[in-house]
Amino acid sequence: MGGGLRADRRADRRDARDAEEHTGRDAMTTTIAFIGLGNMGGPMAANLVKAGHAVRGFDLSPAAQDAAREAGASVAASATEAVSGADVVVTMLPAGRHVKAVWEEILPACAAGALLIDSSTIDVDSARAAHAMAEAAGCLSIDAPVSGGVGGAAAGTLTFMAGGSDAAFAEAKPVLEAMGRKIVHCGGPGAGQAAKICNNMILGISMIGVAEAFALGETLGLSHQALFDVASTSSGQCWSLTTYCPVPGPVPTSPANNGYEPGFSAELMLKDLRLAQAAANTTGAATPLGAEAAQLYALFAGQGHGGRDFSAIVEWLRGMGVGK
Amino acid sequence: MGGGLRADRRADRRDARDAEEHTGRDAMTTTIAFIGLGNMGGPMAANLVKAGHAVRGFDLSPAAQDAAREAGASVAASATEAVSGADVVVTMLPAGRHVKAVWEEILPACAAGALLIDSSTIDVDSARAAHAMAEAAGCLSIDAPVSGGVGGAAAGTLTFMAGGSDAAFAEAKPVLEAMGRKIVHCGGPGAGQAAKICNNMILGISMIGVAEAFALGETLGLSHQALFDVASTSSGQCWSLTTYCPVPGPVPTSPANNGYEPGFSAELMLKDLRLAQAAANTTGAATPLGAEAAQLYALFAGQGHGGRDFSAIVEWLRGMGVGK
Repeated sequence: MGGGLRADRRADRRDARDAEEHTGRDAMTTTIAFIGLGNMGGPMAANLVKAGHAVRGFDLSPAAQDAAREAGASVAASATEAVSGADVVVTMLPAGRHVKAVWEEILPACAAGALLIDSSTIDVDSARAAHAMAEAAGCLSIDAPVSGGVGGAAAGTLTFMAGGSDAAFAEAKPVLEAMGRKIVHCGGPGAGQAAKICNNMILGISMIGVAEAFALGETLGLSHQALFDVASTSSGQCWSLTTYCPVPGPVPTSPANNGYEPGFSAELMLKDLRLAQAAANTTGAATPLGAEAAQLYALFAGQGHGGRDFSAIVEWLRGMGVGK
Repeated sequence: MGGGLRADRRADRRDARDAEEHTGRDAMTTTIAFIGLGNMGGPMAANLVKAGHAVRGFDLSPAAQDAAREAGASVAASATEAVSGADVVVTMLPAGRHVKAVWEEILPACAAGALLIDSSTIDVDSARAAHAMAEAAGCLSIDAPVSGGVGGAAAGTLTFMAGGSDAAFAEAKPVLEAMGRKIVHCGGPGAGQAAKICNNMILGISMIGVAEAFALGETLGLSHQALFDVASTSSGQCWSLTTYCPVPGPVPTSPANNGYEPGFSAELMLKDLRLAQAAANTTGAATPLGAEAAQLYALFAGQGHGGRDFSAIVEWLRGMGVGK
């Protein structure tokens, strides 16, 4: 850790908050810097404002800045300005290299003992490198990628998968609860990213498996509903089938009934499958179906389907069949 | 169909049963021939006896014959003798070639309009060929493979996936209900086999996917319980995870907690995955993960693990990792 002095300062800030509580002021009001106000970050920051926090946002996009102002956040001229004096910093960025670059830039300007939360979905190695940078600067840190998509971000119903120390998680939890419904502490630094990519690897594999079963069933004259009725109440049951059914009909709310508008796009699924493969390459884990799923989504996205919902792969698989 | 005469005879038999009903005798008593009294067939036949049916069994194994006698069935000297005068014939045999050979042998001895139920898990082509043989002989037929294993067979809680005409299904249903809890009419001839192999292809794929996720998570320092807690309540949820978890701990009843005693053996999973591949080869369906799953279970079984529960593949995948 970055030394006793900074820990002391953090304790001082806690004492000050406790004092506020005793005087009856809103003890939950925290100054939060939010960097990355895109499709996910924008509504997440708006929910922090709604929860009564003072939110100082930063994004390169003027449109994102305008939206943040309308939601009640202030907008800083730079990431460094946003984090100055903030208790908590949230980053929501595209990839590990962005997170590392931004944290490297902002950490010298962060208050001693500040808490940094990265909610981006990034590779485990970068997440751990970011944790190490924060620790060296005397800051607490949590990797806290989300599931639930843009809809969950707007509704404040995201799931957060968090990795970091118990102390950091304890400070992060009330902040995350303002943006999500379920907050899971998965383990130490990087465990949140690990949980997310492992979950999404299961998801990508099971979706292709379900899609293959429907495509095979069609060639055998088996109706979608009959396969659904059997598998949904049997050992083939899975979220990809019973909540997100890739063919129209059995689950009226699934994207298959809406022209495969995402939902969760194939290119985002591909991103997560590639992160799982990057982790497996680093650690030496054997993930044969995860590797194949990544290749199939790469082919699917590469043939122009990246913006469609990831369940649309059933149409592509069906189209690959010959001899019917 | 095999002509009006046989249909008339069937109608006569139905009239006779209706008459029995009106005289107050047990209208449900049916003479049932049961061919194949093994680990599955034996307890299934016993449940037919318990339901009040007259069961005439046949099996080549003296031990299976003895068990059937103890359960209250009579034992015939040949398959042909077993089916003579029977209203219903059930076959429970290892593979499509056995079913076709037995049906070819017995059909000339079957009563006109008898109902043949094949509960074996066999390839769709053979199932359809068997249906055609029955139709040519003027008999009704249903393919009705099961899920639920030896435990479900003994407890009478099997699921039957049935394929065949509405008329055949209507006659089969009360017989199947004596052996199972859930009876699904999946469609025409072969649809029961199609539903089973499509379901089990999803199952084999999702089990490997879950196993890969646990194996990858381990190398990333993610605890089994943390991954379970995230995925079981998220988009990675599947039967392979939440009912049959392949690592010890999270689901105390899963075979992982019992040294991977089956349960459902790897060699039976391999059989079903190969049946799915055989069907895909016939119809031209593209099933890339189904093909890979079949290859992985072939490697697993070929290296001496065929008799273990199929969820034990997590140990094998873990052992394949390098660089840890």
